[in-house]
Amino acid sequence: MKLIRSILEMQAESDRLRREGNKIGVVPTMGYLHDGHASLIRKAKQLTDVVITTLFVNPTQFGPGEDFQRYPRDFERDKTIASSAGADIIFNPEVSEMYPAHYKTYIEVEKVSKILEGKFRPTHFRGVTTIVSKLFLATKPHVAVFGQKDAQQAFIIRQMARDLNFDVEIVVAPIVREHDGLAMSSRNVYLKPAQRSKVSALYESLRYAEIRVNEGERSVEKLRKEMTKIIRRSNPTRIDYIAFVEQNSFSEVKIIKPPGVLIALAVKFGSTRLLDNISVTIS
Amino acid sequence: MKLIRSILEMQAESDRLRREGNKIGVVPTMGYLHDGHASLIRKAKQLTDVVITTLFVNPTQFGPGEDFQRYPRDFERDKTIASSAGADIIFNPEVSEMYPAHYKTYIEVEKVSKILEGKFRPTHFRGVTTIVSKLFLATKPHVAVFGQKDAQQAFIIRQMARDLNFDVEIVVAPIVREHDGLAMSSRNVYLKPAQRSKVSALYESLRYAEIRVNEGERSVEKLRKEMTKIIRRSNPTRIDYIAFVEQNSFSEVKIIKPPGVLIALAVKFGSTRLLDNISVTIS
Repeated sequence: MKLIRSILEMQAESDRLRREGNKIGVVPTMGYLHDGHASLIRKAKQLTDVVITTLFVNPTQFGPGEDFQRYPRDFERDKTIASSAGADIIFNPEVSEMYPAHYKTYIEVEKVSKILEGKFRPTHFRGVTTIVSKLFLATKPHVAVFGQKDAQQAFIIRQMARDLNFDVEIVVAPIVREHDGLAMSSRNVYLKPAQRSKVSALYESLRYAEIRVNEGERSVEKLRKEMTKIIRRSNPTRIDYIAFVEQNSFSEVKIIKPPGVLIALAVKFGSTRLLDNISVTIS
Repeated sequence: MKLIRSILEMQAESDRLRREGNKIGVVPTMGYLHDGHASLIRKAKQLTDVVITTLFVNPTQFGPGEDFQRYPRDFERDKTIASSAGADIIFNPEVSEMYPAHYKTYIEVEKVSKILEGKFRPTHFRGVTTIVSKLFLATKPHVAVFGQKDAQQAFIIRQMARDLNFDVEIVVAPIVREHDGLAMSSRNVYLKPAQRSKVSALYESLRYAEIRVNEGERSVEKLRKEMTKIIRRSNPTRIDYIAFVEQNSFSEVKIIKPPGVLIALAVKFGSTRLLDNISVTIS
């Protein structure tokens, strides 16, 4: 596995790989890899010849007071996990390489960046779309794989890639979960044991809603009330949202209609904010 | 000369050209080509193997009440001029191809987009950086050539390309002028004969300032006063600005210091807004 830290070197490597006829896949990550990331790398490896995993804790997607400084980092472990999953190259630039002095350019997907997560993290998606574009332009991939855990992020990246004419196929891979259903996330490491034993209530609430929808319930108000009850039992610090959105517009609905709905939630336990979602199809 | 109207076809063509080892140059234009554009195409042809001229009147860089609808268009003439200057491909997408329904993504270079031109046209540069990125991603060039006439635009595009990691060399070619010094612009066609005979005062004022700086004048206030006097003789409707900026930061100065200054102006004659600039080097 090759380690690249400079943008110019990364571009030269991708140019060479493309000239030799290779299909390039990229898996952008903030590092502190877990089985969820490994599944994205394996997916990219199925679809392409050479897989680049980017490890970069992107400061512009963190708001003031968020966890940029304390975001978990373990480069040696990341290298092992990425390599085992099939990564051929790790692209790991310094912050000063990606955002040199006098950096000023930002990419924004309007409207959908301001709802749900965007309400709680107003500049978050601007940072995400900016860094993802920069990573695409540095790694020149044919395919990029993202996780469904960050469903709104995946939606926004798809929209950005389409809008800006990025010649990159965006693939979204399913959520990987712990045994008790907790969606894997680098931030799970923040949870205290007492919290960790209860947070499976999030997935429990999503599965419950799925069952209720399959039984015929169509009222978002009712479902949200029932999910709230389940989540409250886990003593959350705050439920930021439980949202029911159309899959292909990300606009909120009040009544569930075919072809179905994405149920997405964000809940805080102490200072740890967890996301999860489930897609429910009806006919 | 090949005519391409779809983004996918353009990308496939550029992929093919690149695989065959060609260096690709692009000259983004809004059409209604003149000798200034022709000089950009010739410059691109010197630097690359295959030159793509894009013809696209970009709605997002026009503000409300500006001249998007009446912007001059003459596709047949454009084809002849582009071809004579050495263009190999014309990329001429429809507005609906570049901005389909539900389009939402914009690119912004902060701060420098809000001064000078940006004060008078608040969303202009956001439209420019967005369309230029889209055109880069559609045409996949090695080199892109822009005109110095729009000096602030060239500065902002350079900054954007560097910030976003575009692997595109940005080349800026000198202003081409009419015999009386008027900088060539598609918008010159708007000028009434009585206006046309007087607008050379703009270049006259810039040349005058250059001479005064070369003679040792360093006060921007004095130079601006003298330039204003010259321009007023041509009966302008309004002088939007006469700005003295550092070339590599585009920040305004009060005293001219080595290595020199860019003097940029925007003046309205009736509803026609003209830009011009000159770069003055001192040691």
